[in-house]
Amino acid sequence: MSKIITISREFGSGGRELGKRLADAFGIPCYDHQIIDMIAEQYGYNKDYVSHLSESSITTFYPSTIGRGFASTGFIMTDSVEIAGAENKIIKELAQKGDCVIVGRSADSILSEMKPFNIFVYADNESKIKRCRDRADKNENFTDSQMLRKMREIDKRRSTYRSMFADGKWGSKENYNLLINTSGKEIKSLIPGIVKYIECWMNQDK
Amino acid sequence: MSKIITISREFGSGGRELGKRLADAFGIPCYDHQIIDMIAEQYGYNKDYVSHLSESSITTFYPSTIGRGFASTGFIMTDSVEIAGAENKIIKELAQKGDCVIVGRSADSILSEMKPFNIFVYADNESKIKRCRDRADKNENFTDSQMLRKMREIDKRRSTYRSMFADGKWGSKENYNLLINTSGKEIKSLIPGIVKYIECWMNQDK
Repeated sequence: MSKIITISREFGSGGRELGKRLADAFGIPCYDHQIIDMIAEQYGYNKDYVSHLSESSITTFYPSTIGRGFASTGFIMTDSVEIAGAENKIIKELAQKGDCVIVGRSADSILSEMKPFNIFVYADNESKIKRCRDRADKNENFTDSQMLRKMREIDKRRSTYRSMFADGKWGSKENYNLLINTSGKEIKSLIPGIVKYIECWMNQDK
Repeated sequence: MSKIITISREFGSGGRELGKRLADAFGIPCYDHQIIDMIAEQYGYNKDYVSHLSESSITTFYPSTIGRGFASTGFIMTDSVEIAGAENKIIKELAQKGDCVIVGRSADSILSEMKPFNIFVYADNESKIKRCRDRADKNENFTDSQMLRKMREIDKRRSTYRSMFADGKWGSKENYNLLINTSGKEIKSLIPGIVKYIECWMNQDK
């Protein structure tokens, strides 16, 4: 059975780190921001613009200074659909190349026919704020409530994006094989347990 | 760190089997129906009556032929509250005695101060129906839709019971440390992975 693992995650839950460490443990590639880079390169977009429209609502405000260079409001809808299509294509190509971990971008839904192992990573607000603070730029000066609002906005975008371009509701347990609460935990120490669980799960289909 | 594990589960998801096997793997006791027996014994109730009122809404219809012998509609409210109180007390006593697995009965909420490891077990309808059929009495002759309705009724009772006597929403990921989708899987083969994950999770607190 091929080892295709997708990670969906709440902002600040450590999902990206979990994906990267899981990929390292299995000795397989982890695709995250690389997907944005590929789309930007192949379709001639600005990376920030792709990053903004990907996992974002097409109705979200975006600064007109980014984009293809000639971006204007009229392009948003078309670009969003094109970027979603590009993501879909690239994610399928990556999964067909071989075993991998894919973080975000509704990969669980896009790859559903390949029956990947789908993980959702989440945590309580306290842990997410702490994780964000630990990784924040020194000059960042958000209050806890500002940070919470920011996190909720990003999760809302991920949820909206999923509802527009993929099946199933973001964060609903029905769409995942395992939901991991990382509250108060160091991601690194959980990895051997997740690896073992995935091995058990996959061995049964041999 | 004490090893107190609680299992909440959708009907037919294999949660009870998972709890039993997990307890065996750790060499600790698993409490499930024993809690009903203890309440019935200590409080002088009929076992079926306790089983019915436990994890059930107090407004649910129940046959008047069961109960304390002298049960009548007027007793339902009082009995439900008494049974919930007895469950609360017994579950706390069992957990204080030592490491254990407790299946159902909102133990995750009742024991929240002890910080147990809380698991929610669920599955898709197809798997749950199959599991129920495999274990059903030979004379049972439900159609799939009848079985689904029965499963939903039981889960609804569990959910209502939780909302009446415990904190947090039944099945909501916030209340659990790990949510396990058993769809299409044999419980037995997943156990080593769950054991390893719990060990990783608990070792971090040492």
